Amino acid sequence: MVVTNHRQLVPEKSPFDLHTYMSERQNLVEAALNQAMPLIYPERIFESMRYSLLAGGKRIRPILCLATCELAGGTMEMAMPTACGVEMVHTMSLIHDDLPSMDNDDYRRGQLTNHKVFGEDIAILAGDGLLAFAFEHIALQTKNVAPEFILKVMAELGRAAGAKGLVGGQVVDLECEGQVNVSLETLNFIHNHKTAALLEVSVTSGAMLVGAPPDDIKRLSNYAQNIGLAFQIVDDILDITSTREQLGKSVGKDIQSCKATYPSIWGLEESQRRAQQLIIDAKAELEPFGEKALPLMALADFIIDRTH
Amino acid sequence: MVVTNHRQLVPEKSPFDLHTYMSERQNLVEAALNQAMPLIYPERIFESMRYSLLAGGKRIRPILCLATCELAGGTMEMAMPTACGVEMVHTMSLIHDDLPSMDNDDYRRGQLTNHKVFGEDIAILAGDGLLAFAFEHIALQTKNVAPEFILKVMAELGRAAGAKGLVGGQVVDLECEGQVNVSLETLNFIHNHKTAALLEVSVTSGAMLVGAPPDDIKRLSNYAQNIGLAFQIVDDILDITSTREQLGKSVGKDIQSCKATYPSIWGLEESQRRAQQLIIDAKAELEPFGEKALPLMALADFIIDRTH
Repeated sequence: MVVTNHRQLVPEKSPFDLHTYMSERQNLVEAALNQAMPLIYPERIFESMRYSLLAGGKRIRPILCLATCELAGGTMEMAMPTACGVEMVHTMSLIHDDLPSMDNDDYRRGQLTNHKVFGEDIAILAGDGLLAFAFEHIALQTKNVAPEFILKVMAELGRAAGAKGLVGGQVVDLECEGQVNVSLETLNFIHNHKTAALLEVSVTSGAMLVGAPPDDIKRLSNYAQNIGLAFQIVDDILDITSTREQLGKSVGKDIQSCKATYPSIWGLEESQRRAQQLIIDAKAELEPFGEKALPLMALADFIIDRTH
Repeated sequence: MVVTNHRQLVPEKSPFDLHTYMSERQNLVEAALNQAMPLIYPERIFESMRYSLLAGGKRIRPILCLATCELAGGTMEMAMPTACGVEMVHTMSLIHDDLPSMDNDDYRRGQLTNHKVFGEDIAILAGDGLLAFAFEHIALQTKNVAPEFILKVMAELGRAAGAKGLVGGQVVDLECEGQVNVSLETLNFIHNHKTAALLEVSVTSGAMLVGAPPDDIKRLSNYAQNIGLAFQIVDDILDITSTREQLGKSVGKDIQSCKATYPSIWGLEESQRRAQQLIIDAKAELEPFGEKALPLMALADFIIDRTH
């Protein structure tokens, strides 16, 4: 009955209110992250970790994790420590990627980068602290989940964070810096590792925590890889078409540094078309889940429609 | 019968052959680390991680982990992934501590530091990769151990590696740089976090993997804290009394940089006396374990007797 009433209130074409869904979950994630990360002695390092961890952001990774846990029959409470863990790993990778010896970025999420505020030494240590804490937090705080499922999630998160994931992608990205004629294969490697790997574990971990069957995990994994690549293509497009105010970080850097991007290989229009196709493919993977997959469907659309 | 025969062959005063014990286990650990860390694309990052991980060293942390697992009734096989994991975390902390923006060291374990060979960017990423891989490896490779015990170990390792452990100690160490009159309390904080925390998890994790009772874990934890502090005092002493050839790293740096050390607070002789007392206290904690604790007793003596 409640469902029926709800349907009557919402216009035909938008059966799912993503805006409300996201902002509710963003609030829950913000509160959980804030509570997870204390401010204790030595305060400077905890301040530094909190500075980047609580700098806003869309919280897409934790929201995906919560969503797939619910889709697979679990609760948001079961997935919240993992959701926070993937966001900690994501934040770690942003802090380290921004360092002077890496991408040397001054702005991130609309504020000065971590090393600009706290210095390079503390920024490196803040990243280390966030990475270590992600595992501590998941191991200690995950409740009402079978330990073997938690272990599986931690193994996948370790893989996604390390040299077979984020780190490996960043290494190849650094190697390609200033190179012309970076191959599409190499560009795909970079983004499958820098972006898709962590998105994938964000998506699959929620379902793993409730022991979802391998077929379901496989579909979710395909969904994640597709939206991951679309996400990166859109990022490349936004670097060309947006302002710093919209993005909250430096823009036009890809072109200035002659960096290989999807638009540089395919052009803007074709890049947009391919991103669109990836979202269609991603959503096709969700068909068997029916209505339960509405949030994931809407999140896929959000990735292509976002302007920042 | 084998035990009796063995006893008859060994002189009274040395009931335990630490040299053989350590070199056997060092070989096992070297082989396990070598096998754990692949050399795959992108090779540069795996080379960098292997360069530091396989640079020798005494492997005290993994050996302690294997020893307490056996003491608590387990096997070396059960503990080997964790033993490798603590060594990966230790190696990560060395790579990051040596960076130009931190301690700016050129030599480590008798060879150039990681960033001197691979560059700062790769060295940072190698540390990240090792930290992430430690957790992946423990979660994936630990066999015949209850998942809840593995989770407990991973939680403790995360804590020891992060801002409540290694990272926190390094932050306070950096804050004290160039300061005169660093208090004993602060110096103890630094070393309890930079050194003792990871030694503690090395020691306790082996026993945790077989579900040792809390009282045993507490005794092992006290043992570890005592040898951890003794280890650091001896390190400070060796920085004054050794050559670079003996230590395999830069020496005399503490005095040059006016760094607070135990000898600078207590003097050399009193530092030696206190280190000796910590080893006596450490060994006293092991009394209830009887003969099973012989390796840990001998390892405690080794820490005070070492010349490098």
